[in-house]
Amino acid sequence: MSEVGNPQKFRVEVCFSPEEFDLYKQEYESVVVIDVLRATSAICTAFEHGAESVIPVRNIEEALEYKEKGFIVGAERNGKVVEGFEFGNSPYDYMNENVKGQSIVLTTTNGTKAIHKAAKTHRVFIASFLNLQAVIDFLIREPQDVLLLASGWQGKFNLEDSICAGAISEALLESGKYESDEDSTIASLFLFKKAKRNYWGFLKASSHRRRLRNLNLNRDIKYCLTPNQTEIIPVYREGQLVKM
Amino acid sequence: MSEVGNPQKFRVEVCFSPEEFDLYKQEYESVVVIDVLRATSAICTAFEHGAESVIPVRNIEEALEYKEKGFIVGAERNGKVVEGFEFGNSPYDYMNENVKGQSIVLTTTNGTKAIHKAAKTHRVFIASFLNLQAVIDFLIREPQDVLLLASGWQGKFNLEDSICAGAISEALLESGKYESDEDSTIASLFLFKKAKRNYWGFLKASSHRRRLRNLNLNRDIKYCLTPNQTEIIPVYREGQLVKM
Repeated sequence: MSEVGNPQKFRVEVCFSPEEFDLYKQEYESVVVIDVLRATSAICTAFEHGAESVIPVRNIEEALEYKEKGFIVGAERNGKVVEGFEFGNSPYDYMNENVKGQSIVLTTTNGTKAIHKAAKTHRVFIASFLNLQAVIDFLIREPQDVLLLASGWQGKFNLEDSICAGAISEALLESGKYESDEDSTIASLFLFKKAKRNYWGFLKASSHRRRLRNLNLNRDIKYCLTPNQTEIIPVYREGQLVKM
Repeated sequence: MSEVGNPQKFRVEVCFSPEEFDLYKQEYESVVVIDVLRATSAICTAFEHGAESVIPVRNIEEALEYKEKGFIVGAERNGKVVEGFEFGNSPYDYMNENVKGQSIVLTTTNGTKAIHKAAKTHRVFIASFLNLQAVIDFLIREPQDVLLLASGWQGKFNLEDSICAGAISEALLESGKYESDEDSTIASLFLFKKAKRNYWGFLKASSHRRRLRNLNLNRDIKYCLTPNQTEIIPVYREGQLVKM
């Protein structure tokens, strides 16, 4: 709970890149990891389609070991499915009967890296636009000092994660249970307010979105920007993500 | 010059924290360091009042050595003048006849750290609101691939540096000589557009500004947010900043 300002309120802050996580982490109980395009969207989708757990792994070697053991494995680097794997981080890869009851293994450029970094020291929840309202409702129902960690793009700031963080921040602050006077939170709120009527339009200039468009991923992007497709909040426990 | 997109255009991008500099630096010829509150504002002010050079130093020990040699030395940590020093990073410390013709030594929490980081590998210019138009005019007159490096607050994102970077980005993009599709640049443009009618009002919620207000620095802040007080562009050459 907040030590400064109003002692009845909890704190919410946004960290724009996993590279800066160490500067922020001391002050927070839990971390919400956001990687809208596409890791945390894919994770939410897998659970919505019945996955039992998602095991985030650090590197391709680990992912290969799981694949050899017969797991469904998603491996993405720089927006593409890694050679030798069937699946990447497209949510559409996890919208089928095969994932039901399974443990899905996933390694991605940004999102799984952010999850590992945060999970070393913090309770970690997974957010995307797909489970936006569920995450907001949970954090209002069980308020806690929470850091919203944008996965970014290769360590750099990105718009879509920042806007999703702004959406969560706005709702938490409006609930009256949270406070924040941090510059990163203020910036994410402004970006969200600017973007919220039309995420797609706002993001059309975005470098990362354009990068994905070049990979013909418009269908993925439209889906990932569609709020509230699931009520599930994945949480990290003992090396894997499970339903809360 | 840009290799992607329009080959006739140069690139401008914003880096929100010195902690992320290594992720951005490869693609740029020169770096503009921004620390509105207050290091780069103080540096611009010292030059405007006749300083011959400003020597940024890394730590208090180095600063003390210069002080013992008789230099005018500014030493600031966490917004306060370091014990044993007369001056900090307030621009008002450098608005007097004493600085004329002198080499001023400066060590600060954020700004001088960013300068050292960038100067290891790049040509470095100094910007603040105080020399905003001069920096813009120069970069339009001599276009180059340029990274705008916000010094932040203890490595974290801050609003005032991001807005100043947005002001520079907007003018460069409007000149037609530059292009940028980077998410950080887009975000800084939105923040600047939102803030530009009233910097003071926009920043009033900012954590860093409030931190400084607690130190009774409202006069400093108002001055630092006043554009175009000088035409001077400090540039880093062989261990010191000099007038370009």
